[in-house]
Amino acid sequence: MTEVKERPVRRGGRGRHRADTADAPAPRSHAYRQLRHPFEPQKVFSDDGIANIHNMALRVLRELGIKVLYDEARGIFEKAGALVDHDTLMVRIGDDLVAQALAVAPRSIRMRSASPHREQMLEQGAMVFYPGSGCPNVSDLERGRRPGSLASYNETIKLHQSFDVIHMFGPSAEPQDVAAEFRHYEMMRGQLIHGDKPMFVYARGRQQTEESFDLIRLGLDLSDADFVDGVWALTVINTNSPRQLDVPMAQGVIDFARAKQLSIITPFCLAGAMAPVTIAGALVLQHAEALAAITLAQLTHPGAPVLYGGFASNVDMKSGSPAFGTPEHIKFAIASGQLARHIDLPWRGAAGSASNTADMQGATENNMGIWAALQANTTVTVHSAGWLEGGLCFGYEKFINDVEALQTVAELCAQSPEDEDSLGWSALEDVQPGGHFFATEHAMARYKDAFYEPLVADLSNFGAWTDAGELTSSQRATGIWQQILRDFKAPTHSGSVAERIAGYIADHIDKGGAPPAGG
Amino acid sequence: MTEVKERPVRRGGRGRHRADTADAPAPRSHAYRQLRHPFEPQKVFSDDGIANIHNMALRVLRELGIKVLYDEARGIFEKAGALVDHDTLMVRIGDDLVAQALAVAPRSIRMRSASPHREQMLEQGAMVFYPGSGCPNVSDLERGRRPGSLASYNETIKLHQSFDVIHMFGPSAEPQDVAAEFRHYEMMRGQLIHGDKPMFVYARGRQQTEESFDLIRLGLDLSDADFVDGVWALTVINTNSPRQLDVPMAQGVIDFARAKQLSIITPFCLAGAMAPVTIAGALVLQHAEALAAITLAQLTHPGAPVLYGGFASNVDMKSGSPAFGTPEHIKFAIASGQLARHIDLPWRGAAGSASNTADMQGATENNMGIWAALQANTTVTVHSAGWLEGGLCFGYEKFINDVEALQTVAELCAQSPEDEDSLGWSALEDVQPGGHFFATEHAMARYKDAFYEPLVADLSNFGAWTDAGELTSSQRATGIWQQILRDFKAPTHSGSVAERIAGYIADHIDKGGAPPAGG
Repeated sequence: MTEVKERPVRRGGRGRHRADTADAPAPRSHAYRQLRHPFEPQKVFSDDGIANIHNMALRVLRELGIKVLYDEARGIFEKAGALVDHDTLMVRIGDDLVAQALAVAPRSIRMRSASPHREQMLEQGAMVFYPGSGCPNVSDLERGRRPGSLASYNETIKLHQSFDVIHMFGPSAEPQDVAAEFRHYEMMRGQLIHGDKPMFVYARGRQQTEESFDLIRLGLDLSDADFVDGVWALTVINTNSPRQLDVPMAQGVIDFARAKQLSIITPFCLAGAMAPVTIAGALVLQHAEALAAITLAQLTHPGAPVLYGGFASNVDMKSGSPAFGTPEHIKFAIASGQLARHIDLPWRGAAGSASNTADMQGATENNMGIWAALQANTTVTVHSAGWLEGGLCFGYEKFINDVEALQTVAELCAQSPEDEDSLGWSALEDVQPGGHFFATEHAMARYKDAFYEPLVADLSNFGAWTDAGELTSSQRATGIWQQILRDFKAPTHSGSVAERIAGYIADHIDKGGAPPAGG
Repeated sequence: MTEVKERPVRRGGRGRHRADTADAPAPRSHAYRQLRHPFEPQKVFSDDGIANIHNMALRVLRELGIKVLYDEARGIFEKAGALVDHDTLMVRIGDDLVAQALAVAPRSIRMRSASPHREQMLEQGAMVFYPGSGCPNVSDLERGRRPGSLASYNETIKLHQSFDVIHMFGPSAEPQDVAAEFRHYEMMRGQLIHGDKPMFVYARGRQQTEESFDLIRLGLDLSDADFVDGVWALTVINTNSPRQLDVPMAQGVIDFARAKQLSIITPFCLAGAMAPVTIAGALVLQHAEALAAITLAQLTHPGAPVLYGGFASNVDMKSGSPAFGTPEHIKFAIASGQLARHIDLPWRGAAGSASNTADMQGATENNMGIWAALQANTTVTVHSAGWLEGGLCFGYEKFINDVEALQTVAELCAQSPEDEDSLGWSALEDVQPGGHFFATEHAMARYKDAFYEPLVADLSNFGAWTDAGELTSSQRATGIWQQILRDFKAPTHSGSVAERIAGYIADHIDKGGAPPAGG
C-alpha cells in the first residue's frame, strides 16, 4: 500500500498560517480524520419507550413479516427457520433469529482505505461524516443545474478527497452519461485514482458488485486475505418501506455479507407517508426493517459487517415532500441512536436539506441534521454536505458551506487545555485594565493555531465586504471549489492504480459490461 | 393588568392549519413560551478545570483587582471591606465578599410582563431566547442598510412581539433619529404600546433609568409593591474587559439592584484581544469580571436579581474582528454553563453572526450559537435572531430565518408520545408492504398537528420553486416580515397604556429630557 503524501493545499484548519511549511504534515491537519463524539448521547424517549419500540418491531417481524422479493434471500431465511409464504413472498422472522443475528453482528468495523491514516473504526462513539450522495443532478453558480455526468462525478470525488472532515467517498453525482452496464467501472475508477478514502459500491446486481470488488483488489493490489482483513467497500441497503426488501437490495445484503464487506442498512421511513405518522410508530417500522436486513446478513455470514441505520424524517404536510432538519428529523436521529445503543451496534444517520438552493434554509436544515448527529452520537452521518432538493441535486457551493459546519463541530473533538499555564495568570498580570492581550507572550506563543480558521466565512467588516463585491458565502464558495479543482493533485499512487485497472475495465467493456438489475 | 388576547395571526406552529379557529388559543401556540432545556448540559472542561478557573478568578480579584471608575461603587466596595486604592481606582475584592454575594444572589428570578403568560422564570434549566440587540444599523432587502431610527426600532419591537419564541423585547435597532436625552422615552413607549413581553432598559445614566422605571409603573399601572414583586425590567451590564467597570455600567448595577430590577452581567471577552488567547484564560477573566459586578449588586442590595453572563468568543486572527459561531465560541458557551452551575446562578450566553448578509454563513454562525446554548443549558440566549455584522446591523430577513431555527429547537422541548397507541400497531397492521400510511386512521387522527410547520422554509420541488420565482429563503423572508408589519395589531391594553404615559413623556421632554451620561 502506498502512503499518500499530505496534500500541500489543505482547506480549513491552519492551512493558511503554515504556508511556509506547506509540505510538512501539520499536527492539526489530522484532527479531523479519526473523530470521537465530543458529547454524551441524549434521549428523546425513556429507556422503557425504547424497549417497547424494539419489542414492537420484533412483533412486526414475528406476526406481520416482511415481503422479500428475492428468492435466494427467502431461501436463506427459510433454512434458518423463518416462516416463508412463497405465494405472498412474506417472511415472518422469530425473535430468536433476530437475537442470534444481533449477537454475532460486529460491534466494531475497521473501514480500510488506500492510506492507513484514512481508516475509520466504525463503532459506538466514532463520528464519521459522509458526503451528500445519490444525487441525479448537480448544480453550481457557474454552470447551473444539470444532470450528473462522469465529469461532475469525478469533480465531486476530488472535492471529497480535499477535505479531511469528509471521511469517505460517496456517490454525490450519478454519472448519467455513462451507460448503466459500464457505469460501475467508471465510479470505481474515479474513487481509485482520485483519492485514498474508503470507497462505496452500489449494490446494483451481483455482477456489478463482484466486478467492483475485483477493481478494488486489483487497483490497491490486495490479496484475497487483505480484502477481508477489515472492510474495503461499503454499500447502502435501502429497504422499501413499508416492510419490503426488493431484489437488488436483498442480493446486495447477501453479496456484501459473503464478501465480508459493509452493508449500511437504511430504511427510509417518512412519517406520514411510508411510515406511521408518529415518531414512535415510524421507528417501530424502521427498526423492524433494519433488523430483518441485519438478520439476513448474519444468516448469510455470521459476523458480516453491517451498520444499523435510520434515515427517518417527516413529510411536509403541505407538499407531501420529505422534510429534513425539522424537529421531527432531529428527534428521529436521537431516538435512532437510542435504538442503536439498545442493540449495541454502530449505525448511520443522516443530515440533508430540502432547499432548492444554497441559502439560509439549506444551511439551517443541514446544521440541524449535523447537531442531531452530535446529540445522537451517530456513527456515520450520511448526506452531511452538499445535499439540495432532498437529495435530487448535489450543490457545489452548498458542499463548501456545509464543510465549514462540519469542520466547526469537528474542532469540538479537540480538548482545550486546562493546565495552569493555559489559565493565563502571567497574561492577566501583565495586561492593565483597559489594555489588550495581543502582544502578551502568552498570546504570541499561541496565536498561530489558537483558533479555527474559517474556510468560507468572511469576517471582514461591512465596508471591506462591500468593497470586495458584496459576495454571499455561496458566491465565495464558487471560487473555493474552482481553486480546489484547478489545483487538485491526485495521490502519488494514482498512476500505478490507473494502470492496474485499465486492462480489466477495457476487457469488461468489450464484453458488454454488467447489467445493472439483480439476478 | 390586561390579559392580552392571542393574536389571530401567529407565525409558526400550527397557524395555517387552524385558520378556522383563528381566534381561539391553540394548545401548541403556548409551547414556545415557557421552555425548559430538552438536553442534559455538556462539558468542555473537567470539574477540576472549572474549579481552577473559579479559583484563579478569585485570585485575580484578590491580588490584581478591578478598576472601578465610579466613586459611589468604590465606596460600596470599600465599606464592605474591599481594598480600594483611590489613586489608581483599583478595587481588590476578597474571597469572602464574593462568597457572601454568591450566597444571597437569587437562584430563580420571576421576569414579569404585561401578560402573565409571557412571564419567564429565569433559573437553571429555563431556555429563553432574546433577540439580536444593540445594533446601530438595520437592513432589509427592500430598503437596504441604514442607520437605526425610531421607525425601525418600533418595527423590530413588533417583530419580536409576533413570535412566541422571542421571549423578551430587546433593543434591536438604535433609534438614532431621536436625541439621546429623549431616546429612552421612545424606547419605553415602543415596548409598552406594541406588545406585552418583558422589557429592557438601557443603563445610560441614573435619571434615564429612573424615568424608564417610572414609565413601566405608570404604563402598566403598577404600585411600588407590584414593581418589586418579581422583575419588570432588565438591563445588560458590560464590563470593559479587561478588568474595568465604567461609570454608567457601575451606576447601572447599583440602580437596578436598588430598584430590585435585573442586571445581566456580561463581560465581552474576546480571546486574543481583550482577553487571554486561551479558552481557559479568557474564562478566568470573564468569571472575575462577572463576579466583581455580581458582588457590587449584592453589596448594594442583598438578593438583587442578577444573571451571571458570558459572551466570550475569539477574534479572527486575519481581520481582528470578533468571530461568532466558531468552535471557540461554542466551547466558551459550554464552559460558561459549567461555571454558572459551579456558582449555581442562572446566566446569559449569546448566539450571533459576523456575516454581512443573510446567507449560509449567517445561518451557520447563528445555528452554532443556538446549539451551543442547548449544550450549555444557557438560561437566556441573547442575540439569538437577527444579528448581522457582529451586532452592527439588525437584518429583518436574517431575523425571520433565525426564528425558524429557534422554533425548530423549541419544538424539541415537547415530549413525543411513547404510549402504546403511538407505537402504531394498528397502522402497521393495516398497511401492506409497499403501501402508504396517509389514509390510515392512525394518521388521519393526527396529521393536523403531527409535525412542525415551517415558517420560511420552502419544501416544494425544484420545478415548483423555479415557477415561483426561484426565491431564496432570505427573499421569501421579506414577504413574511412585511405581512407581519402590515397585519400587526397592538395588544388590547395598548391604547390605555399610551394614554397613561403620554403626559409624563410630554412633560419630561418639555423639561429637556435626561442626559445619557452617568452622574
